[in-house]
Amino acid sequence: MEEGKFIELAKKAKYASKKIATLPVGLKNTALLNIAKNLKENQEKIFEANKRDLEEALPLVESGELKQSVFNRLKLDENKMRDMIQGIIDISNLEDPIGKTLLKRQLDDGLILTKISCPIGVLGIIFEARPDVISQISALAIKSSNAVILKGGKESINTNKEIMRVIQEALDSIRDFPKDVLTQVFSRDDVKNMLSLDKYIDLIIPRGGNNLVRFIKENTKIPVLGHADGICHIFVDESADLEKAKRVIIDAKTQYPSACNAVETLLIHKDFKYTTELLKALEEAGVELIAKPESWHTEYSDKILSYKLVSTLEEAIEHINEYSSGHTESIITEDSKNAKIFMNAVDSAGVYHNVSTRFADGFRYGFGAEVGISTNKTHARGPVGLEGLTIYKYNIEGNGDIVKDYVDGTKSFCHKDL
Amino acid sequence: MEEGKFIELAKKAKYASKKIATLPVGLKNTALLNIAKNLKENQEKIFEANKRDLEEALPLVESGELKQSVFNRLKLDENKMRDMIQGIIDISNLEDPIGKTLLKRQLDDGLILTKISCPIGVLGIIFEARPDVISQISALAIKSSNAVILKGGKESINTNKEIMRVIQEALDSIRDFPKDVLTQVFSRDDVKNMLSLDKYIDLIIPRGGNNLVRFIKENTKIPVLGHADGICHIFVDESADLEKAKRVIIDAKTQYPSACNAVETLLIHKDFKYTTELLKALEEAGVELIAKPESWHTEYSDKILSYKLVSTLEEAIEHINEYSSGHTESIITEDSKNAKIFMNAVDSAGVYHNVSTRFADGFRYGFGAEVGISTNKTHARGPVGLEGLTIYKYNIEGNGDIVKDYVDGTKSFCHKDL
Repeated sequence: MEEGKFIELAKKAKYASKKIATLPVGLKNTALLNIAKNLKENQEKIFEANKRDLEEALPLVESGELKQSVFNRLKLDENKMRDMIQGIIDISNLEDPIGKTLLKRQLDDGLILTKISCPIGVLGIIFEARPDVISQISALAIKSSNAVILKGGKESINTNKEIMRVIQEALDSIRDFPKDVLTQVFSRDDVKNMLSLDKYIDLIIPRGGNNLVRFIKENTKIPVLGHADGICHIFVDESADLEKAKRVIIDAKTQYPSACNAVETLLIHKDFKYTTELLKALEEAGVELIAKPESWHTEYSDKILSYKLVSTLEEAIEHINEYSSGHTESIITEDSKNAKIFMNAVDSAGVYHNVSTRFADGFRYGFGAEVGISTNKTHARGPVGLEGLTIYKYNIEGNGDIVKDYVDGTKSFCHKDL
Repeated sequence: MEEGKFIELAKKAKYASKKIATLPVGLKNTALLNIAKNLKENQEKIFEANKRDLEEALPLVESGELKQSVFNRLKLDENKMRDMIQGIIDISNLEDPIGKTLLKRQLDDGLILTKISCPIGVLGIIFEARPDVISQISALAIKSSNAVILKGGKESINTNKEIMRVIQEALDSIRDFPKDVLTQVFSRDDVKNMLSLDKYIDLIIPRGGNNLVRFIKENTKIPVLGHADGICHIFVDESADLEKAKRVIIDAKTQYPSACNAVETLLIHKDFKYTTELLKALEEAGVELIAKPESWHTEYSDKILSYKLVSTLEEAIEHINEYSSGHTESIITEDSKNAKIFMNAVDSAGVYHNVSTRFADGFRYGFGAEVGISTNKTHARGPVGLEGLTIYKYNIEGNGDIVKDYVDGTKSFCHKDL
């Protein structure tokens, strides 16, 4: 749509975000359960829309214009639909992330400071051909009292439109629900407008491949929550247990090779006695091993693993801090002192000891729902749950209190946490 | 300096940031106390350097090229020096913000997740003619284990250089202290390079006037912590107590009119019975009153106040959410229900009841030290203390744990907070 129209839409989203910020949690949960119910009741219509998308995409797969993996993600079946609906019900059961008291402090007699969690405002979501993202992000936005503008991939446009229609229909039945909290846009120009409107949009969350995320990070001043690369490392220390090393590395590389938390580079201490056995076991597990300096920057997303011998723990730490994308790293060692040094010195969102890097995930961490995994150094880092969609404000309750009294010494602060 | 040289400097700062991240708090505090001591011992040399800056600035003030207020801030006297030194000692006494356990959760038997506070990395500080910022920010950076690249105003260049020399000399005596954590740059090109180097610089903190902050926010993709405008509102509700309204508004407007948390716009409920008395009292306190729609965007930073009558509480809330810069607002009311609605619905960093907006300040909130006041919607909002210079990482301790076991159902998560 043209820029002026998009600005109007963003303004409406901003306005709606102020409205949903004050909704009681009961109403938000009712909205979520209505959505879940309406998706269930309309699933055949959604499948029909999805079928149209699949029919339009098939020739593109055959001509090589669309990857088979993208086509697979596009397809909605009964299992995916059941997971989608259950995901919304799960989010309705999570604790309200809004209105939590994060700090309560008496500043002086009758002067009380409270720090309270509140929504961020308007989220811009840009995602690729995974229509289940719409319902998941809409549910997360409602639960965290944020408005959201969604831009999906063009391959899933029919499915996306039908899911959003069903969601909006479910919200119709709730009086006073600010329906502009959920908006969908469709064109490339809309992405451009979204990325430029820092006045109305407070946070961008890209859900998709590395190239999409990198493009977005390069083209906006709005904070972006996510990660482009996932170059994760495992360091096998001198004292590592061979069996643990095998188990963990094979899991981290082969259990789901295209995941962002799969290991890409293996560092082995030169004095580790079982390097030959370890590498042999990896090859037997179908892992192709590569030892070239140019590969330290490579995210294979496949059963390929770079490896390198290092002379010391410190060399391993420096290699990781130089080449890692800051996602997740692990040390395999029986030396707890070395584990501690590694976990302290490695500057990544996840730093593990004798654990597969694949554990970096909001559900595995027990967050209930996941917005994404962030390699940012501000706001939210690592797997991000509902809390990452919140900020806070400070309230003060007083009785005509003025700063002059504290500047001229008439009164003084006590700063007592309550 | 040329771009290549700046990149080298930024790389060194990044490397030093990894080193200081692992320093024990005792060493950081020793560094701070050494700096305080050396500043005290070298204060005459610093005053001499400051005198040179003042001598060079004086003709510019006379010719009108430099504002008198900037000149005043440039001057370092014994009082300012004493406050500077005490400020560093105070920071050494604050709790270590690094290495705090923010969450400890058992994921399964022998699989423990810990969320630990850690530094952000490299901070870029751009400040105007206030040489005391150098020692304050250096101390905050050391305490929070961050590296910092400082760019001060050209008016205070001699003072800035001498203070940094004295600080670095104090750090020389500490073996293994990564001295590259503190670097100073001087040119406009350095600002340009700083704002473009998102690869090495993790957070920009501008300390200065609105124009500086606005320029920086417009010209970088690095997260910026701060605020450009401070358009704060006070709403006098129908049931407001006249005496409280007078006290609070006069304090909020006149106690320090150029502060960012001074009130700029007064909204009065049309049914408030004492509007005439209130406006008269404000005029008697030397406040000039203006009632023009074009002034809703104006930050006067002077004893001038826009005012407007509104018909309802809701209209006041909507006016504020439309025109406020999101800094600090206050409601004056005896109706606690209205106060609650206002505090809940107004989307600003500080929302008060019967309290002057001037309380928005890290020291008044009891944070011990203040990095600045943020109107951002992510990371840190409102007055920001040391905590705003930290992020966190997730550690997992295990014993060869792999994701496959949880995917195939051999094991399951217990997610028990410890």
